[in-house]
Amino acid sequence: MPVDINELKSYLAARGKRVDAALDAFLPRPNRRPSTIHKAMRHSVFAGGKRLRPVLYLLAAAAAGSQGEPRQAAIFEYLHAATLLHDDVVDISDLRRGRPTCHKVFGEGMAVLCGDALLTEAFAVLARIRPTPRYRTGDFVRELAETGGSRKLIGGQVMDLEGEGKPLDKGAIVRIHETKTAALLATSLRLGAMSANATPVRLDAVTRFGRALGLAFQVIDDILDVTQSSETLGKTAGKDAAADKATFPAILGLDASRREAARLTRSAMRALDPLRGNADRLRQIADYLLVREY
Amino acid sequence: MPVDINELKSYLAARGKRVDAALDAFLPRPNRRPSTIHKAMRHSVFAGGKRLRPVLYLLAAAAAGSQGEPRQAAIFEYLHAATLLHDDVVDISDLRRGRPTCHKVFGEGMAVLCGDALLTEAFAVLARIRPTPRYRTGDFVRELAETGGSRKLIGGQVMDLEGEGKPLDKGAIVRIHETKTAALLATSLRLGAMSANATPVRLDAVTRFGRALGLAFQVIDDILDVTQSSETLGKTAGKDAAADKATFPAILGLDASRREAARLTRSAMRALDPLRGNADRLRQIADYLLVREY
Repeated sequence: MPVDINELKSYLAARGKRVDAALDAFLPRPNRRPSTIHKAMRHSVFAGGKRLRPVLYLLAAAAAGSQGEPRQAAIFEYLHAATLLHDDVVDISDLRRGRPTCHKVFGEGMAVLCGDALLTEAFAVLARIRPTPRYRTGDFVRELAETGGSRKLIGGQVMDLEGEGKPLDKGAIVRIHETKTAALLATSLRLGAMSANATPVRLDAVTRFGRALGLAFQVIDDILDVTQSSETLGKTAGKDAAADKATFPAILGLDASRREAARLTRSAMRALDPLRGNADRLRQIADYLLVREY
Repeated sequence: MPVDINELKSYLAARGKRVDAALDAFLPRPNRRPSTIHKAMRHSVFAGGKRLRPVLYLLAAAAAGSQGEPRQAAIFEYLHAATLLHDDVVDISDLRRGRPTCHKVFGEGMAVLCGDALLTEAFAVLARIRPTPRYRTGDFVRELAETGGSRKLIGGQVMDLEGEGKPLDKGAIVRIHETKTAALLATSLRLGAMSANATPVRLDAVTRFGRALGLAFQVIDDILDVTQSSETLGKTAGKDAAADKATFPAILGLDASRREAARLTRSAMRALDPLRGNADRLRQIADYLLVREY
């Protein structure tokens, strides 16, 4: 299946714009008091990301036969932004996607509170999701909270923090990335599919797709951190090495890391088989991620 | 209605123990990997607090005619601990309730992540609450998230942070404490009452009680910060003045602050009238808070 990259890019850009519109419509207005925190929230959310997680939410909903609500899709961006900005506080990173980080602009105290506010706002919005015959509101909330919690996303950040300067093996790095990155990608797909009342078989398919894709995505991110300049990346390059973090290229070497990314992407593709033609856009995204220049 | 303080104290201690047992049973075990974060969560939650918010949850459930689940009551302690420990990171406070703060023991990065984990865990538990005929799971989640968010609790922290060193008037301080303290007390009562399927009249009664009580509680806290030693308080005394924070005593003077606390407590009492005898324990607590030696 040859992918028309330009067609895909404009499709993704259009979906991303719907997410941006929802973010703008539903995040508290910047002049709402106390205005500093609401400005900080928007600074962190409108930072030029690809809106990958919300788009996956919408595509999984589509693959399960329904449109998907951009307002619900957008909450993955709240959670993602909260993670990044607290990460930046912890790592004392000054640059993110080519822009000064939240704590550089608003101060460390405000950045901590801003992450808390985004986390909390995600649940305020998710609480409004319409239940389906198969899935209750509590199911959505529980999945998001468990994914964001100490045994998954935050657990991965902790392992990452504690692993700095230590020799980690491949298994340890895989565990970090499964929890830190892949889990949230999988959950964005799962919640999208659940919002469309997906059958268990379809839900399982997008889950396995998300986990493999997330891991592939992270391997590629590690590779790019080694091979690209800060300018191209839009963030401080080489910071993994500077922080003495274990990465796939550091352990496996570049070539083996590239093969690992390709293998994971094929495994993501196979996971989508039960969804047949409904998952073509998800396949294209996986394919697209593999042709990034790394 | 004369209060038997010793009887009330042992009643509250018994309720607090049920909450402690639920916290111990349902927080991730300390040896669960990654263990540092789970140890940090327990360090922050088991720090000798009075469990006021969970106890209010249970008493409001009782006032509305049902027992109340300690596991659900306990999540207010997650949220409260998360707020305190992120506050301590922001304020660089080393001592809390006579013990070293989370960031002193586990480092700043872990303390930021620990607060995030506690926040998120609160929603993971709340997602499991049983809906009632009047209130759906989403109603509980939305209330907690809105109370914890940028327009209430976090908004109050922001106003507090931004108010340091500035001359604030009484209205501004009231707004800070309404959002930073009273809102969460009111919500712990509301969710307890909702879990017991409270009528709108009863729900309104505990809400107004909680707001007045929360404000009274904060006025008293301000007074104690001026009048007590660090040893008695179990935290650094005089830190409001040291941080140049506007407080009730600083603006109104001590005597007027004491009268304000008494007035707010009477207003809290009146709010409970519709609940009649079912709210006796709540009345006793309000009375008890007023006889603290301030």
